[in-house]
Formats: sequence, structure tokens, C-alpha cells
Amino acid sequence: MSGEDAPAQQQNAEEQKQQQQQQETKTPAESPKTESKPDPPPSSASTEAAAAAADTPAPAAEKAPEEDTFSYRALVLTGYGGYDKVKLQVKKGKPALKSGEVMVRVKMCGLNFADLMARQGLYDRLPSPPVTPGMECSGIIEAVGEDVTDRKVGDKVLVLNRSGMWQEVVVVATTHTFLMPEGMSFEEAAALPVNYITAYLMLFDFGHLRPTQSVLIHMAAGGVGIAATQLCKTVNDVTVFGTASASKHEVISQGGVTHPIDYRTRDYVEEIRKISPKGLDIVLDPLGGSDTHKGYNLLKPMGKLISYGAANMLAGQKKNLFAVAKTWYQQFSVHTLSLIQGNRSVCGFHLGYLDSETELIAQAMAAVMDLYRQGKIKPRIDSTYHLEQVGDAMRRMQERNNIGKIILTTEPMKEEEKKEEVKKDEEKKKDDKKKDDKKKEDKKKDDVKKEEKKEEKKKEEAKKDDKKAEEKKEEAKKEEN
Amino acid sequence: MSGEDAPAQQQNAEEQKQQQQQQETKTPAESPKTESKPDPPPSSASTEAAAAAADTPAPAAEKAPEEDTFSYRALVLTGYGGYDKVKLQVKKGKPALKSGEVMVRVKMCGLNFADLMARQGLYDRLPSPPVTPGMECSGIIEAVGEDVTDRKVGDKVLVLNRSGMWQEVVVVATTHTFLMPEGMSFEEAAALPVNYITAYLMLFDFGHLRPTQSVLIHMAAGGVGIAATQLCKTVNDVTVFGTASASKHEVISQGGVTHPIDYRTRDYVEEIRKISPKGLDIVLDPLGGSDTHKGYNLLKPMGKLISYGAANMLAGQKKNLFAVAKTWYQQFSVHTLSLIQGNRSVCGFHLGYLDSETELIAQAMAAVMDLYRQGKIKPRIDSTYHLEQVGDAMRRMQERNNIGKIILTTEPMKEEEKKEEVKKDEEKKKDDKKKDDKKKEDKKKDDVKKEEKKEEKKKEEAKKDDKKAEEKKEEAKKEEN
Repeated sequence: MSGEDAPAQQQNAEEQKQQQQQQETKTPAESPKTESKPDPPPSSASTEAAAAAADTPAPAAEKAPEEDTFSYRALVLTGYGGYDKVKLQVKKGKPALKSGEVMVRVKMCGLNFADLMARQGLYDRLPSPPVTPGMECSGIIEAVGEDVTDRKVGDKVLVLNRSGMWQEVVVVATTHTFLMPEGMSFEEAAALPVNYITAYLMLFDFGHLRPTQSVLIHMAAGGVGIAATQLCKTVNDVTVFGTASASKHEVISQGGVTHPIDYRTRDYVEEIRKISPKGLDIVLDPLGGSDTHKGYNLLKPMGKLISYGAANMLAGQKKNLFAVAKTWYQQFSVHTLSLIQGNRSVCGFHLGYLDSETELIAQAMAAVMDLYRQGKIKPRIDSTYHLEQVGDAMRRMQERNNIGKIILTTEPMKEEEKKEEVKKDEEKKKDDKKKDDKKKEDKKKDDVKKEEKKEEKKKEEAKKDDKKAEEKKEEAKKEEN
Repeated sequence: MSGEDAPAQQQNAEEQKQQQQQQETKTPAESPKTESKPDPPPSSASTEAAAAAADTPAPAAEKAPEEDTFSYRALVLTGYGGYDKVKLQVKKGKPALKSGEVMVRVKMCGLNFADLMARQGLYDRLPSPPVTPGMECSGIIEAVGEDVTDRKVGDKVLVLNRSGMWQEVVVVATTHTFLMPEGMSFEEAAALPVNYITAYLMLFDFGHLRPTQSVLIHMAAGGVGIAATQLCKTVNDVTVFGTASASKHEVISQGGVTHPIDYRTRDYVEEIRKISPKGLDIVLDPLGGSDTHKGYNLLKPMGKLISYGAANMLAGQKKNLFAVAKTWYQQFSVHTLSLIQGNRSVCGFHLGYLDSETELIAQAMAAVMDLYRQGKIKPRIDSTYHLEQVGDAMRRMQERNNIGKIILTTEPMKEEEKKEEVKKDEEKKKDDKKKDDKKKEDKKKDDVKKEEKKEEKKKEEAKKDDKKAEEKKEEAKKEEN
């Protein structure tokens, strides 16, 4: 997952950047949203790229015909911003396989909060655009590099990587692939790695979760939320408090949340204190900002707060500087003496920064797979989108409409679906325009109101001044008297 | 261990305060250092004390003769300061037993770092002086209160309490006593509670120690250090880095420290990096200040720093404001975003703040006792002192001359020992005087040197001024020319 482990991905990114410099040419035959990019002509390759190519077993000059015609669709983040910044493009040329690497034909990809942060430029583990995002996928091994003995062509695998998974073909170090257990669907396999390893390491390594303990899970209907709930249920008598909007309560209750709390209408701290006056053993905090403070204050002695994100920074599809600044400003910091006096622990977790810890990940993955085989966990799929619909998929996640995992499938869209998609797109644009217009109108109204208020204030102040002037006059009179 | 759980202790403290107000009368027959205090006459009892007495099952007015003559020796912290602030006194009157309480005839008491901090007024869990310090002891149950079914007269127990254990008789809630296993000595029993429960909860709850991991143990020859080393050895292939002065390395190596490091002559961070370039899984930090920063930076991904003290605040027998301020100023604080990016955990631990967590303590104690029965842990006794020698005991700990636990025994000193003690005391006083004189002399010398330096500086500056003046003259000449 590190730079050294995934040179093919980096090389792709390099190629993409070169491609980006070329003029963009749309190929309507592919899809309304798909952009086909020609290979950069050899003459345009930089010395650096040429040197890199010389290292690969099949240099560009000696490419076999099959390798020349090899192409695959890939989602590419073209720049930081809104949902439309992730575009479907066609990459050409067969990626080279180094020793210890495998090529995977991707079936399904998982969507994660880090991808949303990355699109807004808020996640430093994604190389700068143009780049293919995505930390996880499932698929079938199509080719193996030299010295690969533990994987063979045809193996069904799930893949966990720092980035680059949202495309039809990926090349990764074999250590980043894990064999899919019998009976696991490709959707489940793509939904599992990030959410379950995150939840597993947080609850069982940092959290040391034991029977009869209590856990607060924010965004309990999200990918990590559902994974964490299921993992809590593998331990006896664990009480799970889960925040989610009311419409999701039935589903998360069935999934194992003991006390669902609608954070939109209730103060979750109060609700928890009512049920568990002494507080909680573990708080999983993906929100950051003021919620981290609340979580810390909810801890029992020997309690653990595990911070694993700053979802509060996400407000709207484009970077909201106010939300970022506010979350940053309110971000929690703690002094060891406070920790000592409270017998507390504060932990930080993000799988994206663990990409070189292959052994740790392999152990956690093995444990998670065992639980899957025993039927104790099962990823819940919220919805599956085509690569062309990645914007809708991201919107669904960011607006927190999902219950469970959102999946991207590499299966091409049918023609009729595409037509419908175009219609929907137009409607959405109209809708967005309406929303924008509404916002503008609201702003205008607000401005007018503000102006009115200002006027009123001025008038009042003028009145006050008049009054004062009168009072002074009277005083003056009195003095005269 | 909380206020509600140990009213007898609090009542004793109340009595002591009243006694303190009386004139101090030495009783040479007892011991040169022992002060016998008469019971306060009933007339002097405050209304508050009288009200409190009315609550007890045996009010003062109805005391049986045996209860009137009942007396026991107790160490009492009479005020914050040096080693001599802990005085041996005689308390009179049999403590009242409430429901759920037991009275223990104490054999041995354990000495802890918190007691040293408390003497200097740096530990807020000890009630204000006059008060009997001490968090742990061992002994035999002498009486049981109503509703006590799990303990009987004659039971050998070890006791863990918030304070008040350094005396011949203690009254505590039965939940704070634990039956001594077969074959355990009273010394071991007094050495075990604080150190082993601290080390156990840090390593296995906050630390989640697993096979092949690495741990840094500061003050590896201290009570917690030796307990932690032994507990590390109960897990396969754990690498233990232990800091201690060179003279203790042989013993701690035999005890299980893989890499002893002399922190006085070596940079421990460098030494650890040489052996373990990736860093450590767990750092146990009793020092505070700049050492916490070093420990944090030594952590691997998923590593845990566990801060459990501020021993760096202790410099000299009296409170050293400079050391306190420096340690406080350098005290570590951390931001969740730093924790997230490093996948790290920072924990604070202090058993003194867990006094109401009886269930948690009972579970940890049961686990520790099991390990003792299996022969996997065994407290190492450094030395045993009589109550009269508590000053020496504290000095030995504070000057870090111990390897293992320092114990106080309630066994009275023999007459010849006492005489020797008096001699020693006189020698020590002479020694202290010499030290003081030496310090004064050194200061004088320093002052003289400083004066000389100042003089030299002045002379040099005068020379420089002369030179400048000459240069100016020459320049003036040149200009004239």
C-alpha cells in the first residue's frame, strides 16, 4: 500500500498527469460522462518517465499488440471540488507487473468517507490530482508477477490499498490482496476491508472491548458504524449506543444497537447519561470538533476515546472553509495530567496511515474473515452504483442517506439506464440550479432583513440620542434653576 | 476506598487533627521518635465530632474499658515538607466498625511514589495533614463488622486503600481487602497491590500487550518497573527496554529486561532506535515532562503511551518549585489529529483515582493473584524498615537506590536497634549538616567566582572601550589628514 508497494499505481498517476496535459477529447460513444484519453505519444514522455519505463520488464517500445490495445475504464479525480470532479476516463496500455505484484480485474469498489474528504482536498494520503481514488475493491486475479506463489489467475480476492482502486484493472502487491471466503459476494468483499478492519482495530486493539462494557457509535448506520455494531455483538452483553436519524433506527436496532439516538432532535450526551450515568467504556468518534470533547467527558475511568475522522469538516459538496476552520479550531487536545486524573485514554486511528503495516493488517483481516465464516459479521450493502454514477454515490454518502455500505460496480450501464441517467442528470442540474437560486434568493431576503434591522437600529439610536439631548436640556434647565 | 467507604479512616484523621491542636508531649519510653498523644478530653470535642460520634454504634460516653485502653502506633504526615514530616504517633481508642467493614492488625505496609509526592503536597488524593498516608498493607483480620460474610477473624489479607494504611490497625470496607494466597509472605502481600495492579491495568487494558511486542519501562528497578517486567514476561517474546542506573542492570536483566539502558550516561531514545528502528508498541511513562514527548515520538503505529506519574517533579526531599514548574511546563499535551495521523494512543493512569472502581480492581487483583499462584510473578522486596525508620525508607526510594519494593514493618524495633538508630540519626544529622555546609561553601565559592568573572568582564569591556577610543582617535587623525 505504500509508495514502494504500489509502483504501478503511481506510474498510472504519472501517466494520468501527462494525459491531463493533453487536450481533453470526449468520446460520446462510450458514455455521456466517459472521457477517452489517448496514450501520450512517446515523444512527450519526460526523461523521468522514460527512465521509469526502462525499469519495467516490458518497455514501451517493445509492447506487444495486445498490450497496445489494452484499455480499461477508471474514475479519476481531476481536481479538488464538488461531485463532478471525479470523472470516468479510459486508460490505455496494459499496466506492467513487477515481482510480487498481481493484476486484478475489478468487480466492485467500496466508497469511504476518506474519498469524500479527498475530493475536497482534505485527505493528505491521496496523491494530488489527477489520480484514481478508492481504497478497496474486489475482483478476480488476471495475471501474477514473478515470485508470486500464494495467488494464481482466477483467484477471487478483496484488495485494500492506499488509493487507485476505483478502476476496472488494478495492479497491487500480493500482500494487499486477501482471498475471498467461500460464499462471499463481490459486493460484500468490496464492503469489508476498510470498515471492518477500522472497526476491529479500534474496538479490540485500542479499545480492548470486554463483556458488559458500553460503546458509543456515531453514524451508526454508516459503513464503520454497522461494522462496529456487529463486532460489538461478538462480545457478551455489550451495550451499544448508536446515533443516527430517526428513520434509520429500526434497521440499526435490528443490527444490534441497544439504544439508538436521534442526534438531530436530541442531546445525545443527556440521553446517554440518563441510561448510563457513570458514562461509557468506549467512544468511537468519526466527527471531530466539539463532539470529541463531548465524547471525552462521557468516558468512565479506564475509558477510551477513539478519534478516527473529522466528518464535521464536511458540509456541502465543496470545501466549506467555515466548517473546516470551526472543526479544526474545536479539535480536541488533551494534557497527560487530565488523562491521569481521569484514568482515560485518547486514541487516533486512520487506516490510510497504516498502509505499510502489512502484518498488522493481515492479522486483523484474518480475524475479520474468521468472524465472517462463523456468520458473526456480514457487511450490509446500502446501494450499488455504476462507475458513471459515482457523483450520486458520493452525494448519498455525504448527505448521510445510506444505511450500510455504498458500492461502485464496474459492470457497464445498459443503454436504457444511460438514457435515464441523462434525464436524471438534467433534472438534478435543474434541481441544483433551483437550490442555488433559492439560496441566492434567501440571501437577498436575508440581506434585505439585515438592512431593515440596521435601519431600525439607526432609528432607535437616533431616538435615544434625541432622548439624551432632551435629558441634557432638562439638566441644563435644572442647573440654571 | 472512597470517602463513603472508609469513614473510620476519615474519623481517625479528624481525631488526629484535634490531637494535633493539643500540646505535643514526647514519651521517651516508647521510642526516640514516637510521640504518644492522649485522647482529646470529651469537653474539647467539637460539635461536629460529637455529632459524628453519635452516628457510630458505640458512642464515646458508652465506651467499654477495653476500647478506652486500645492504642496503636501510626505514622502521621504532620505537614508538607521533608522526610521528617512523617512522624510516628500513638492513636488511642478502638476504631468503630460499620456494617461491611473489617479491622485489620497490620503486619507490613508498602511504600509508593505517590506517598513521596503526597509528603511534598503534590498528590491531591491524600486528605490534608495531619493524616496517615499509605495505600497498601497486609495483615490479619481482627474484627468484622455487621453483614460481613466473606471475611472472618484470622484471615490473612492484603489491603488497598486511598490512604491511611501506615499504621498498626486499619478499618476498611471488606471490598478493599483480598485474601492472601497460600505461601505468600506478608512482605509480598504488602508489596503487591499498588505496583501489580498498576502494571497489570496499564499493560493489558490500556496497552493490550500481545506476543512479539516491545515495551519501554522507565525506572525498571522500581516497584512498578519490576512488576511490569514480570507481567511482560507472561506474554511470549515481548522485548523489554528498561532504564535504570548501571549498578542495577544485572538484577533487572535477570528479572526479564531484554535491553537495560543506563539513562544517566546514555540517550535512551538513541539506544532504543539502534535496536528497534521502527519504535515501540508500549511506553510506560512515570516521569512526565520532556520524557513524555520522547516516549510519544518513540511509538510505532498502533503504539500506546501510558503516562502514570510525574516523578520528574521530585527533586530533593522538599518541594522543588523549579522542578515542579519545569515538569508542569513541559507536560505533554496532544491533538487528536496528531494521534490520527500517527495511529497512536495516549493514556493516563493512576490507581489513586480508581478508588471507587471496586469491581475493576477486584478483577485485576484476581488475575494478578492467579499469576502469583502459577509462579509467574513474585514481588521483589528491596528492603524492610521499621515504622520509626520511615524517613530512611522514603529517602532510599526518592534517591532511587532501591531495586524492588520498600516495605515498612509494624514490628517494633528492638532496644539495641533503637540505640543504633539514634546514633545513625545523629550521624545523618551531622551528614546533612555537612552537606548543607558544603552547599553553602560551594555557593560562596560560586559567588566569589561569579564576582571574579564579573570583574574580568568589566576589565575586558574597559579594554575594549579603550581600544574603541584609540580607534576613534586614529580615524579622527586620518580625517584630519
